[in-house]
Amino acid sequence: MNRHDPEGTKNRGRQGVLRWGRWGADDVLGTLNFLDEAKRREGAALVRRGVSFSLSQRFDMNGPQKGWRRRTNPVHTMLDTGTDAALGNQSFPHGIGGADDVIAMPLQCSTQWDGLGHIFDHGKAWNGRDAATTVTSEGDLVTGIEHMAPYVAGRGVLLDVGRVIGDERKKLPDGFAITEEHLTETAQAHGVAVGHGDLVVVRTGRLARARREGWGEYAGGDSPGLSFTTAGWLHASEIAAIATDTWGFEVRPNELDAAFQPLHQVAIPNIGLLIGEMWDPDTLADDCAADGVYEFWLTAAPLPITGAVGSPVNPVAVK
Amino acid sequence: MNRHDPEGTKNRGRQGVLRWGRWGADDVLGTLNFLDEAKRREGAALVRRGVSFSLSQRFDMNGPQKGWRRRTNPVHTMLDTGTDAALGNQSFPHGIGGADDVIAMPLQCSTQWDGLGHIFDHGKAWNGRDAATTVTSEGDLVTGIEHMAPYVAGRGVLLDVGRVIGDERKKLPDGFAITEEHLTETAQAHGVAVGHGDLVVVRTGRLARARREGWGEYAGGDSPGLSFTTAGWLHASEIAAIATDTWGFEVRPNELDAAFQPLHQVAIPNIGLLIGEMWDPDTLADDCAADGVYEFWLTAAPLPITGAVGSPVNPVAVK
Amino acid sequence: MNRHDPEGTKNRGRQGVLRWGRWGADDVLGTLNFLDEAKRREGAALVRRGVSFSLSQRFDMNGPQKGWRRRTNPVHTMLDTGTDAALGNQSFPHGIGGADDVIAMPLQCSTQWDGLGHIFDHGKAWNGRDAATTVTSEGDLVTGIEHMAPYVAGRGVLLDVGRVIGDERKKLPDGFAITEEHLTETAQAHGVAVGHGDLVVVRTGRLARARREGWGEYAGGDSPGLSFTTAGWLHASEIAAIATDTWGFEVRPNELDAAFQPLHQVAIPNIGLLIGEMWDPDTLADDCAADGVYEFWLTAAPLPITGAVGSPVNPVAVK
Amino acid sequence: MNRHDPEGTKNRGRQGVLRWGRWGADDVLGTLNFLDEAKRREGAALVRRGVSFSLSQRFDMNGPQKGWRRRTNPVHTMLDTGTDAALGNQSFPHGIGGADDVIAMPLQCSTQWDGLGHIFDHGKAWNGRDAATTVTSEGDLVTGIEHMAPYVAGRGVLLDVGRVIGDERKKLPDGFAITEEHLTETAQAHGVAVGHGDLVVVRTGRLARARREGWGEYAGGDSPGLSFTTAGWLHASEIAAIATDTWGFEVRPNELDAAFQPLHQVAIPNIGLLIGEMWDPDTLADDCAADGVYEFWLTAAPLPITGAVGSPVNPVAVK
Repeated sequence: MNRHDPEGTKNRGRQGVLRWGRWGADDVLGTLNFLDEAKRREGAALVRRGVSFSLSQRFDMNGPQKGWRRRTNPVHTMLDTGTDAALGNQSFPHGIGGADDVIAMPLQCSTQWDGLGHIFDHGKAWNGRDAATTVTSEGDLVTGIEHMAPYVAGRGVLLDVGRVIGDERKKLPDGFAITEEHLTETAQAHGVAVGHGDLVVVRTGRLARARREGWGEYAGGDSPGLSFTTAGWLHASEIAAIATDTWGFEVRPNELDAAFQPLHQVAIPNIGLLIGEMWDPDTLADDCAADGVYEFWLTAAPLPITGAVGSPVNPVAVK
Repeated sequence: MNRHDPEGTKNRGRQGVLRWGRWGADDVLGTLNFLDEAKRREGAALVRRGVSFSLSQRFDMNGPQKGWRRRTNPVHTMLDTGTDAALGNQSFPHGIGGADDVIAMPLQCSTQWDGLGHIFDHGKAWNGRDAATTVTSEGDLVTGIEHMAPYVAGRGVLLDVGRVIGDERKKLPDGFAITEEHLTETAQAHGVAVGHGDLVVVRTGRLARARREGWGEYAGGDSPGLSFTTAGWLHASEIAAIATDTWGFEVRPNELDAAFQPLHQVAIPNIGLLIGEMWDPDTLADDCAADGVYEFWLTAAPLPITGAVGSPVNPVAVK
Repeated sequence: MNRHDPEGTKNRGRQGVLRWGRWGADDVLGTLNFLDEAKRREGAALVRRGVSFSLSQRFDMNGPQKGWRRRTNPVHTMLDTGTDAALGNQSFPHGIGGADDVIAMPLQCSTQWDGLGHIFDHGKAWNGRDAATTVTSEGDLVTGIEHMAPYVAGRGVLLDVGRVIGDERKKLPDGFAITEEHLTETAQAHGVAVGHGDLVVVRTGRLARARREGWGEYAGGDSPGLSFTTAGWLHASEIAAIATDTWGFEVRPNELDAAFQPLHQVAIPNIGLLIGEMWDPDTLADDCAADGVYEFWLTAAPLPITGAVGSPVNPVAVK
Repeated sequence: MNRHDPEGTKNRGRQGVLRWGRWGADDVLGTLNFLDEAKRREGAALVRRGVSFSLSQRFDMNGPQKGWRRRTNPVHTMLDTGTDAALGNQSFPHGIGGADDVIAMPLQCSTQWDGLGHIFDHGKAWNGRDAATTVTSEGDLVTGIEHMAPYVAGRGVLLDVGRVIGDERKKLPDGFAITEEHLTETAQAHGVAVGHGDLVVVRTGRLARARREGWGEYAGGDSPGLSFTTAGWLHASEIAAIATDTWGFEVRPNELDAAFQPLHQVAIPNIGLLIGEMWDPDTLADDCAADGVYEFWLTAAPLPITGAVGSPVNPVAVK
């Protein structure tokens, strides 16, 4: 990696990981193809105690968004309320009352998946498609997240890098670039294997810090995250997806001069990698530390919003 | 059931099923309490082949909503597109481009859970709380759907009543009231048991008909659905949740004179029942008919929208 | 006009009306440039009685939109209500209570102006700009409707074609193409002149019919409207703007084979014409018929939504 | 005014200004009733030069809102773009292309009118109506802002208190309470009369400061504004409406202990006063300073959003 040669570094990073055509010209699933039925059987066998965990942040106005790229926090409003029902303001008969609600939100505002149409590399989307005709104002006409709806359920692995590598508060500092070595060291400390078809959750401790200190620059600012150098591992490991507890998955500031999210640029359109962001693994992580088991059954089903390039998600882990 | 005495019938229906206080004064989960760790272990053991199914309709403008109660179909718009990325309209460096999106939608517009704050009975919400102070313009201050986020994963059972009782197209006619006897007969035909802690999915064939004939009055019009007389069974069976492929779960027109959704009125605030609507069980149903197995692992995790009285959901079944 | 040669007809229509550069390369106002200070003084002198009229439809869920091009009716929801205030659900001190609200709506959903960035002709926007870089996902970067905010106030003229040319219900039938001759005949019947810098309101009676018969296909269906052949008059008359009581300004079905809104295609990007749609001139029209005065002061100020290609508007006429 | 007796002070403030029933039990216009036809004739006569000004801020994500009370800045997104049109991503024939857009915004997010249903006093709305049944989740069922749609056009008067009383930057400091004496002194300095039926615009300089220094706490923080003691003048002067260049119209911090917007509490439900906020009078103010004329024709037409308790507005002044 040559920090001062961002274009060259990205070009080299792209080579060796480019996976266009791997699953045919019509593929709309990318690395999710690795999550096969055998992997699901393996994952389901991990349900031993029957305890379940949500890995989602809450969706409300107290979230981290501050307006960048017109991203707001979710605005949830009521169409009808219990207050109105109790006061007789509704026209329903025989004592029935109802409440209804509405939401307006960016699909990337909180815990979410990035769809395959979320990032482009030099005008190319996943599988070599032209970005210009794949993701228009109508949405992602080819690789919309609705195609992933049935499939995101399998073996989950937590890599609590914050706990293994981090400080006494189990967190990594901003700007800390997590390398393949850090991931391997963490997996070894956990006694867990990571590989083909897995749904990997990386905990940095960044969200826990925001919980203590306030959002600050959580959305878009400095952060620990994956190093650009992990591109090779993200490809070679054949994982099905990876998610972090940070806004942007990769380390911030970015490692290449004047670059913006270079690992996204390699990982999504070239590797076809499914990336999750702003997940909340903290409750699960405490449980894993307590029982020493870092693998589990994970369902993280995106809403099948037609043509969406991302989706809010409530990932549920069961051990 | 006396059709011409709706108030009396509902009062009698309420008696014997009222479950306030069953899980303490602070309960926010209702029947989801029945879904315990043992049930999750039982459910996970049902993953034999590793094949997964989405039970969600797509979220887009082609949905069934026509504006009743200000319910629209989801409006999904793009904040950035591949077209703009390809044309150089974005200011990102080194060839990276991005697409982002936004959604505005009623939480009850498509495949969804009704939260415990969705329906009231004579001013009372679940557990006997005052509707007036529980669900205000700020949302459901007590039983918001966010509380259910970690828990909706367990043993699922499909009761394909449309296939067992219905016509040659595997559907029930509009106005068909599904009774406890119909449910029992269907379960026996499937060779499956239904009970404590289960997540029950009832297929009527109504959605399949809408798929063939157009939405018509799917959202709010006549429909097959559960009979008001199933209230006793819904209570006594101790199921954790129940969902249908119809807009409104219960039969339409309603069975009581001048009533509106009387089974909701009994089931949600009095029984504490978690109800799903507009689910799409059709692909799963075909698979169940093929292999004769009507039980499976089901995760149907609502988005933890703070204070919401419902949530869109992508239920994922794994067999 | 050769109905069977839409391309040729449009090309000929474009010639002679093309006004690119007329107000310099940087122009963002189009025909609104004709509305000068002299015209405003002339308009203000028309306030004789002091009576005022709104020419806007109401904005609510009872509007005509049915989802075409993801256009919905406005969804208006409350953030706080009087009901909550009265019940003490708000945290404000000393007896003050408040209500707040939110709206989500397409800018073209009801009474509106089409901005200069609303329509393109073979990739060109008003003044010959490239559509591709003028109106991106960020909005209209050059000719956004905010630029018109201070200027849309001047002399208004009502041409009640429905009353002069139409049937006994003062309306034109669907498919009726209003020609220059019809406009001239109407103006003469009213005893009013129309020309340079005027804000012209054309009443067809289409909205009045929708009010009687229901919306039906008001939004997008057949309708009376301006003939493609009026392009020359729209140019030569040097009017500042024109609005109708129909969804689409021009006659529907369109007059050219397989065409879609060909007059828009000529008028907005080539003439730079400001076009209003779905206005409600009916109350004003009755008053004009009663006193015989068809000219008035008109303010129709778009909301300065940055980068918008249209704006809802409440036009106010004062006589 | 006894700062330490907020309840008593407000009760006394309410006495002598209470106007319930003044225009009958059915009134939905409040002080807008003072704006009569004679006043409109007087106002129109003020158009001497024909020059027009917008008094609106722009509506976009760069606005002052920070999420308080779920108030966001407007989110404007595109349904179709010129980029898509130019690239052939649209299905329209013969070279026509189109752009369409959508907005989601709180009605109080930027330049706006407060409707009569916006504020309550001890459970009472304007004219003594019960807040609980007047403004429900359905909106303002009685005094929705749509009723004002035709009427807000008349004589405008600018009182540039910032220029007359303020510092060398023509602004008042935060916490500066503008009294009746300040208003009178300003009017005298301008050589303009203010009274019955007028639309009064008060400039404090607060917005100009935000323009220089950034929004900071513009929305909800400290600010100059009208003193609680002006309630008597607001009533006795019989003005039709009043607007300021601040977020909240009245001085902040409020003058009474532990109070929240006490002048709103007196002015809207008791006086029936139409109040505008976040107006931008700065360009107009410079013109008035230049020509010494502080009166003009003003149209400030709210969008007729059915049941709304406020409306965005683009006020247009013509001199």
